[in-house]
Amino acid sequence: MNIISISHKKAGLEERSRFAFSDEDKKEFRRQLFEIFPEIRECVILSTCNRCEIFWNGDDENVKEVEKFLCRYKNVPHSHAIGYLGIYTGSRAIRHLTRVACGIDSMVLGEDEILRQIKEAYYEAHESGATDYELNTIFQMAIAAAKEIKTSTGLSTTPVSIGTLVANMVSSLISEGYGNKVMILGITGKIGNITAKNIVAKGGVIVTGTTRKHNAEGLLPSYPQIKMAEFHDRYELMRDMDIIISSTESPHYTVTADEYIKTVGNDRKRIFIDLAVPPDIDSSIEELDNCRLVTIDYFKQLSEHNNNLKAEKALDARKKADMHADEIEKELRLHEIITKLPEIREMISANGIDKLVYGLRKKADKEQVEQIADWLLGNLI
Amino acid sequence: MNIISISHKKAGLEERSRFAFSDEDKKEFRRQLFEIFPEIRECVILSTCNRCEIFWNGDDENVKEVEKFLCRYKNVPHSHAIGYLGIYTGSRAIRHLTRVACGIDSMVLGEDEILRQIKEAYYEAHESGATDYELNTIFQMAIAAAKEIKTSTGLSTTPVSIGTLVANMVSSLISEGYGNKVMILGITGKIGNITAKNIVAKGGVIVTGTTRKHNAEGLLPSYPQIKMAEFHDRYELMRDMDIIISSTESPHYTVTADEYIKTVGNDRKRIFIDLAVPPDIDSSIEELDNCRLVTIDYFKQLSEHNNNLKAEKALDARKKADMHADEIEKELRLHEIITKLPEIREMISANGIDKLVYGLRKKADKEQVEQIADWLLGNLI
Repeated sequence: MNIISISHKKAGLEERSRFAFSDEDKKEFRRQLFEIFPEIRECVILSTCNRCEIFWNGDDENVKEVEKFLCRYKNVPHSHAIGYLGIYTGSRAIRHLTRVACGIDSMVLGEDEILRQIKEAYYEAHESGATDYELNTIFQMAIAAAKEIKTSTGLSTTPVSIGTLVANMVSSLISEGYGNKVMILGITGKIGNITAKNIVAKGGVIVTGTTRKHNAEGLLPSYPQIKMAEFHDRYELMRDMDIIISSTESPHYTVTADEYIKTVGNDRKRIFIDLAVPPDIDSSIEELDNCRLVTIDYFKQLSEHNNNLKAEKALDARKKADMHADEIEKELRLHEIITKLPEIREMISANGIDKLVYGLRKKADKEQVEQIADWLLGNLI
Repeated sequence: MNIISISHKKAGLEERSRFAFSDEDKKEFRRQLFEIFPEIRECVILSTCNRCEIFWNGDDENVKEVEKFLCRYKNVPHSHAIGYLGIYTGSRAIRHLTRVACGIDSMVLGEDEILRQIKEAYYEAHESGATDYELNTIFQMAIAAAKEIKTSTGLSTTPVSIGTLVANMVSSLISEGYGNKVMILGITGKIGNITAKNIVAKGGVIVTGTTRKHNAEGLLPSYPQIKMAEFHDRYELMRDMDIIISSTESPHYTVTADEYIKTVGNDRKRIFIDLAVPPDIDSSIEELDNCRLVTIDYFKQLSEHNNNLKAEKALDARKKADMHADEIEKELRLHEIITKLPEIREMISANGIDKLVYGLRKKADKEQVEQIADWLLGNLI
């Protein structure tokens, strides 16, 4: 197998978009490819916003020509494309695919989306009759490998985004006994918004959001579970809340200890999560009985820690991906022997195994003789 | 093959001498060894002043026991011996032998003596009936490899000792047209002595030596070609000399320009070689027509240069020795297949080659399948 790859690693968004393929486009590209290169019988095309990869069967004799054809087809000067276009052949191509499939070649390490995209790209080609033994074997084994690796390394389940980390904390607070009423001050800001989505996605919570923006209703249209309220009513609403998250861009405190005691009353256990810089929540809150304050620093540290953990897992995943790539290669090579079995049988019955064995003295090196000896002698009883 | 090695690398002279073997001793040791360890059928013993190495056939199951037996036999406490005793098994043992044979494990890099000693050790064992297929193959191939490596790398022909370098210069001076009469002042000193021997060994020279020692005659008994003379007659004798080498421990000059002009007369081309520190020869000699002076610094630089050259050649020799070791291993492994050919033939005719091939999917890794595929498919027409 060979691969031409245009990815976020070297190509910018503008460059990648020139190599984007719709499904119709894929079919037309393949029609021309198969016509020009009769030795090419299989072709899978992966086209996502981060990468375009063309996979095709066979050895690497035609790589340069296919590269030029792709550029002509996409109307990109070849001299321009070679600056960011990557080529993988043979073993390296199979390794590239297994690595990409488990998300370790992605911008966001270990993301799940790419595996779904690879599956869809493969099915599209398969259904179009553009895959045969080689790409079927490689893609099916690579997809199975990626699933296995993700499960065994936990690469994709290590949260690093602040939104996910806050949502996880909210979940565990509720399971520890806190109530499930969550208020998010600044819900339409970048962090507030993503945090809200993550919390809602976990389920089992009632979320109230405030914003100072007038078009707030339109910002969270797909989350009817989130009730919007006026920012200036926050203290009154807080009486009914258990968890208060604040993430505004305001230069002023959104919650002060004095006003909290005066208006809300420190009548039950409440948790305050301050995701803003500069801080939104008066740190004196921390000193009140019943109140706990968690700041952005805590989540930043946790995120860094998890990032390191993820980098380790990615190394582990890469090793495993390469091992799976070896298994794929082995299967392809074995298939080659199996398809030639009639000729091999005939050769052995004509010349005997002896001639083959003696031929090793001149033709083979130590490793080959060792592997063959292990095979032949290991099968004797 | 396995090796127990006690060598200059880790063992001192006193320790090595406790493991020395005479030929009779070798026979007795082997007699007991073969009796105690029925699986051991072959044993070569190399015993030189720099190393004792016991080589025996088979895999490494008995290494610890043989080690203990050797210590008992030589009456050396095992706890003492393990501090300097080395063990090599399998591939590493074969590599060790090929390296030792080309002299790159020797104190003097690339020396020739060790190869002769290995040959003799092997012949002794062979004639005693203590070698069979395994050690015969290994030793014969290792000896042939060492010869080949020495020729192709020139490792043993790069001179680094001052004595050899001076002798080489004397030879080339004579072939350039200088006369062949050489005087060595301080011939019984360490450098004078070795230089004299090297010069005489090259032949075609007449050497006159002087010393201040009274027992001078006894110091060079095996070199009747060297005529000894009195030190205080040196200037008179010099009239007939072409090349004057001086290497005394004297704090005074042995030759001054003034005395040379006065007594010898600067009547013909003469070369002065000063190997002494502090210098023996008045450097004003250099300024006289007909005279040339070469000092110890020149030879030291040349020696250093050649030492570097030799280190490079030794690296090359080591690579080659390891490649030859691989060839030996290959031959042994191939022999294993060949001896089992009847069973292999039977297995294939009973189950067919198909079963063997399909078995690879579970039992083999990528490399093994590749090697086997290359073998089977490479033999198809």
